[in-house]
Amino acid sequence: MSSVFAERPTLQIVHRAGILDLGWGHPDPVLLDTAGLQAAAEQTLTTYGPIALGYGYEHGPAPLLAQIAARIAAAEGRAPQPGEIMATAGNSHALDLLCTICTRPGDTLLVAEPTYHLAVRILRDHPLDLVPVPGDAGGVDIAALETTLARLAAAGKQPRALYSIPTFANPTGISLADDRRRALADLAVAHDLLIFEDDVYRELAFDAPAPASLWSMAPGQVVRMGSFSKSLAPGLRLGYLTAPAPIISALTGSGVLDSGGGVNHFTALLVATYMANGGYAAGVERLRAAYRERRDALCDALEARLPAGCQVRRPAGGFFVWVDLPPGTDLRTLGERAEAQGVAYLPGSKFFLAGGGNSALRLSFSLYAPAQLVEAAHRLGRALG
Amino acid sequence: MSSVFAERPTLQIVHRAGILDLGWGHPDPVLLDTAGLQAAAEQTLTTYGPIALGYGYEHGPAPLLAQIAARIAAAEGRAPQPGEIMATAGNSHALDLLCTICTRPGDTLLVAEPTYHLAVRILRDHPLDLVPVPGDAGGVDIAALETTLARLAAAGKQPRALYSIPTFANPTGISLADDRRRALADLAVAHDLLIFEDDVYRELAFDAPAPASLWSMAPGQVVRMGSFSKSLAPGLRLGYLTAPAPIISALTGSGVLDSGGGVNHFTALLVATYMANGGYAAGVERLRAAYRERRDALCDALEARLPAGCQVRRPAGGFFVWVDLPPGTDLRTLGERAEAQGVAYLPGSKFFLAGGGNSALRLSFSLYAPAQLVEAAHRLGRALG
Repeated sequence: MSSVFAERPTLQIVHRAGILDLGWGHPDPVLLDTAGLQAAAEQTLTTYGPIALGYGYEHGPAPLLAQIAARIAAAEGRAPQPGEIMATAGNSHALDLLCTICTRPGDTLLVAEPTYHLAVRILRDHPLDLVPVPGDAGGVDIAALETTLARLAAAGKQPRALYSIPTFANPTGISLADDRRRALADLAVAHDLLIFEDDVYRELAFDAPAPASLWSMAPGQVVRMGSFSKSLAPGLRLGYLTAPAPIISALTGSGVLDSGGGVNHFTALLVATYMANGGYAAGVERLRAAYRERRDALCDALEARLPAGCQVRRPAGGFFVWVDLPPGTDLRTLGERAEAQGVAYLPGSKFFLAGGGNSALRLSFSLYAPAQLVEAAHRLGRALG
Repeated sequence: MSSVFAERPTLQIVHRAGILDLGWGHPDPVLLDTAGLQAAAEQTLTTYGPIALGYGYEHGPAPLLAQIAARIAAAEGRAPQPGEIMATAGNSHALDLLCTICTRPGDTLLVAEPTYHLAVRILRDHPLDLVPVPGDAGGVDIAALETTLARLAAAGKQPRALYSIPTFANPTGISLADDRRRALADLAVAHDLLIFEDDVYRELAFDAPAPASLWSMAPGQVVRMGSFSKSLAPGLRLGYLTAPAPIISALTGSGVLDSGGGVNHFTALLVATYMANGGYAAGVERLRAAYRERRDALCDALEARLPAGCQVRRPAGGFFVWVDLPPGTDLRTLGERAEAQGVAYLPGSKFFLAGGGNSALRLSFSLYAPAQLVEAAHRLGRALG
């Protein structure tokens, strides 16, 4: 490699010596099915030949969409029709494309908080007016959402959409309970409110099947963003949308897809192949078992080691544990004390648009083996002790 | 495959029985190095293992950037430094990202015309004011550009950038002559005008090395968008930018890359591997020879078969031949007459923002074998005869 690039990174993650960094929502490399994807890549080019390398259909190649639709139908009881589904380059790309094509400068966008901090960065790259909607330990607060809608309506404003992560949420791990989920779907219909449903953690359900997607409950009002980043491999940059047909038409008819063809055509056929040969379904089961073990290792150790007054919210899926700290914890110096013990986290305040979360932490259990997670909990206990 | 998807497309291209459609700027599948990329995919996962599947570095993985930088240094005499280069998902993605991150609603963007019609669609998906700058048989008209800048300055406006395709242009095949190229680079510096240089056809030089990129001539003023779509395979969705460091910082620091990691990490390492093992350099030579033969076959046949008064602009690279038709040609019915003969093209008017190009056609020689291109020229001659 040319010398000036020899010291440059290949991956996004930055490892720091001696620190167990539970701030990263990245997968442990040992959990990625390198061999299975290598075989699928070989098989993809044998099966499709140069068709895997040309400009792809704007909606994404039919073999991928058929696989995803069949999996959705089996899990959610409603299959997207061909005009209701498209491939994306992952949820970050999907959200960015939604903002470009489906919003106008100055539009109001509601954000259910706490929320994924980097989704907020994507939204803020567009000329939108972001309005937070508060939540509690059960997820988005429906009454507060109604109040917000009424306040906006009084000002003559109809929000373009609500961005929410209702299932195994980042950062809290919470899934919206069934009654609140139903209320949100009904409210979306009643108010003609579009919902951008970030559904990236759905496949990682540990204890029971994931709750119904908002999309399956109100398919006329919801753009559901699904992804292979957590359930397979983020480096493939592949995901999908299920949404009302007019929105799929607008997105697939965008200039960027008209010009470049379907998003990530080669990796789309690679994943189609991997799904068709059974690798994906088996891989998701392996990941569920591995992340369940990690969730339990971390949560058990946190409950044993954190001082009284800390509340550990054990999630039923996803990557994250949210920890509420007792009043009086000095958050300003906690990060430093934790690093001195060899552990890191993301402070809760990162996940609020304008204040909040000051007495909470987000811990990710995706990157480390169970024994390391136990050690991380011990270190955090010492930092808080 | 699930029945409702069985009849859906995999590729973007639509073939019509009996029509040689020279409207598509797509590669002939037989020219794609399926076997070489299959071997490179295998090698990538052996070499990098799970590192090929994680969240990639926002700039793109160093092994790819090192390969591209070395190739640019050899061809252009100026190597981008690490802070001056990043991976993209192809030029459509790059242009879209530039619009999102580097423009503001209401900004004026200059467009050198005729221009790539689908780039205009991408630009129009953003709230920009597009102002055309005319050209002639030599490319963008520098005096007209100066007049336009003066007119905008008088109205208190500084355009955000000029979008141009100075090398083997779409749709004309023209490369800006050296003196005009120098004048454009100097003007950009003198007026602090940013140039979005669409450089997608650079590798496909048939008769002599491609002219210097605008980026190499004025690296402080030019965002050069390079791509593997024409020189390797569009389905990989991979390209790169070379640009001033502050622009690379803004793009790599965008929300969408911060959240999703580097663009197309897996295919980036796949192409890095293919470049490192010599496949890319050899493949570009094969493509140059193949497209040169097609250019010659089509241009020779057009010159022999088109009626007097038609002017065929034989390009020195790229995918396209621009044909000026004699005055009095009935353009309104030509498309129908051509289809009746079994040939199709894109009308020149498609490549202008607000009128123009009414007596010209764009023909692509990328998709068909030489004998088919000769036949297409015969059919077009009959339609025009």
